[in-house]
Amino acid sequence: MQNNILEVIRILKGANGQPVSGAEIGTSIGVSRTMIWKYVQALQKRGYSIESIPGSGYILRSEPDFLYPELITEGLDTDIIGTELVYYDKVQSTNDIAKQIGSEASDGTVVIAEIQDSGRGRRGCDWCSPEGGIWLSVILKLSMSPSHASRLTLMAGVAVAETLRKIGVNASLKWPNDVLVGGKKICGILTEMEAEAEIINYVVIGIGINANMDPESFPDDLKKTSTTIKYELGKEIDRVIFVQSLLSTLEQHYIKFNTGSFDEILQKWIDLSDTLGKQVCMVTPVKMYEGKAIGISEDGGLIVEMADGSKETLISGRCMYV
Amino acid sequence: MQNNILEVIRILKGANGQPVSGAEIGTSIGVSRTMIWKYVQALQKRGYSIESIPGSGYILRSEPDFLYPELITEGLDTDIIGTELVYYDKVQSTNDIAKQIGSEASDGTVVIAEIQDSGRGRRGCDWCSPEGGIWLSVILKLSMSPSHASRLTLMAGVAVAETLRKIGVNASLKWPNDVLVGGKKICGILTEMEAEAEIINYVVIGIGINANMDPESFPDDLKKTSTTIKYELGKEIDRVIFVQSLLSTLEQHYIKFNTGSFDEILQKWIDLSDTLGKQVCMVTPVKMYEGKAIGISEDGGLIVEMADGSKETLISGRCMYV
Repeated sequence: MQNNILEVIRILKGANGQPVSGAEIGTSIGVSRTMIWKYVQALQKRGYSIESIPGSGYILRSEPDFLYPELITEGLDTDIIGTELVYYDKVQSTNDIAKQIGSEASDGTVVIAEIQDSGRGRRGCDWCSPEGGIWLSVILKLSMSPSHASRLTLMAGVAVAETLRKIGVNASLKWPNDVLVGGKKICGILTEMEAEAEIINYVVIGIGINANMDPESFPDDLKKTSTTIKYELGKEIDRVIFVQSLLSTLEQHYIKFNTGSFDEILQKWIDLSDTLGKQVCMVTPVKMYEGKAIGISEDGGLIVEMADGSKETLISGRCMYV
Repeated sequence: MQNNILEVIRILKGANGQPVSGAEIGTSIGVSRTMIWKYVQALQKRGYSIESIPGSGYILRSEPDFLYPELITEGLDTDIIGTELVYYDKVQSTNDIAKQIGSEASDGTVVIAEIQDSGRGRRGCDWCSPEGGIWLSVILKLSMSPSHASRLTLMAGVAVAETLRKIGVNASLKWPNDVLVGGKKICGILTEMEAEAEIINYVVIGIGINANMDPESFPDDLKKTSTTIKYELGKEIDRVIFVQSLLSTLEQHYIKFNTGSFDEILQKWIDLSDTLGKQVCMVTPVKMYEGKAIGISEDGGLIVEMADGSKETLISGRCMYV
C-alpha cells in the first residue's frame, strides 16, 4: 500500500476515536483534502470502517479482520522476521509461494494468506486451511547443513506453543511437527528447504494455526482430532496481535539459533513436550518401532526405548501414541 | 518433435546412405509424399543434411551436431535416466530449469542445453558453459534423508569418470564434486535438492563437462586450471554418443544406489580418487584444516588426518591441494 494511505491510518488511529478533518490530515501529509477523501474511500473498500462526520472530520471506528501487512507491521517489534510481508487473500499454499520467491527474498520474509486452497502437511498430506485461520510461511536464509533442518521445525514448534500459552491456550508439542491442546491438533508445521548437497540455500517454515474457526466446521475426519483457539478460549482472538506475538517469539529463538544456542531451544521443546514419556509407535519407511519416547537427539530425532531395553534414534517417520 | 518426423529420420538412417523415395517413406508412415517433403524441409532447418536426388529420393548425409532429444533417444539403452529429455539451445542454467519442473517431472528426467548463460558451481560460483560442452541436469525422485544427498554427488562423479575412461580420457575424482584429468578440471557436479526437513522431494544433479572446446577459448583464470575432452584426445567427440554412454552408466549406479548398494559406489569413488593420499587444506565456514586425506565417510565426507594424528570428517567445505 502507498505510504500516504498508511499515514492516514496512523493519524486516524492516533486520534483514538476523535474526528480529524480532511484538511488537517491533508496538511500533515502534504496533499489536498480531496486526495484524503480518495484515500478514505480506498480504506473503506479494504474493510476499514471510517465514519465521515460533516463539518467535523473522519473517525476510525474499526479495522478490518484481515491479516493485512499494514496491520501486522504497525506495532511489530522484530528486526528480521516479518520486516517483509507478502499478503494474499487466497493461495494454493503459502509454502509454495515462499519457495517461488525464496531465492530473491530477504531473511525473515513472511508469506501470509487468509485461505489456502491446497495447504499441505508433511509428505504432501492435505491441511485444511479455511478463513479465520493463520496460514503463514517464514523464509529463513541461513548457512547450515541440510541435516540440521529438523531443528528449525522444533524451534518453530516452541515459538507457536509459547505464543499460545501467553494467551491462555495450554499447548504442548508432539514430535516432530504438531502443536496439541488436550491431545488435539491446533497447529502443524511444515519445514521445507532448497539446498545444495552440503549447504542450505534457504528454508521455508510453514505454520498453520487453527485460530478463529469452529472445529464443527472441519471435515468429519478432522472434527475429533483437531481443535481451534476459538474453541479453547470460548471466543475469537485478534489474529493480528497473535501474529505479531508469534513473529516476535520466533525471532527471539531464531537469534538464539543463529548464535549457536540450539541446546536452549531443545530444552524448551522438551519442557513443552507432549510426546516424551509416552508409549509410541513409530512408522518409518523401513520398519515399525514400538516403545517409550525417552528423549530428543541433537539433530531433532526422537529417541525411543524398546521393550528389550534397546534404543533407537528416529529422524524421520510418523509418530503415533499407543 | 512429431512422431512422423522422427519416423522419417529413422527410415533415412536405416537406408545407410542409399536414397529412399518420398512416395516410399510416405506409404510407410501413411502420409502423402508432399507431406514428406515438408518434413524433410523441417529437418534441414534443424541441421540435418538431407540430399534430394530427383527421380531417386532422399539421402541423409549427416546429422546435426546438437544434443537433440531425438538423437540421444535413438539408441539410448536406459529405462529411467533420460527417458524424458528436455532440450534448450540456451538457458540460464539447466539446474534452474530442472528445479522449476522438478515437482512434476518423472524420475530420471534430463534437462540439456547447448549453452548456459549463467551456469553455476557450488555456492553460486560461476561455471563457464559455452557451445561444444555438455551441460545437463538429471532430476532424481527418491525417498531418502537430505543428509545423504552428498552420496549422489559421489555417484555422479563415478559415472562421469568411468564414461571418460571408456573413451580413453584418464579421469580421476577430486573431493567432493570435480572430475580432473592431469590435475585440471574437466567436469563439475552440482547437486541440489528440494526437501522437507527429513525427506527429499527431489534431487537435481547438474553435470557440466568440457567436451568439444579448446582450453584456449576459456577466460584467463580458467585456462591453466581446466582441460577439455577435445584437448585430451586431440580430436572432437560425438557428444550424442558420449551422453548416451554417460546416462547409461549413471543409470547402472542409480539402480545400485536405490537397492542399497552405496558401498559399492563408494569403493569405486575411492578407486578413482585423485584426492585420497594427498595433503589437503580444507576451508570450512568455521575453521581451516590441513592434513592428509585418508578416506571417505559413509555420508560422503572427507576424512582428514592432521599432523598431530587426530582425524576429522569434513562434510562441507572447499578442498585445496597443498
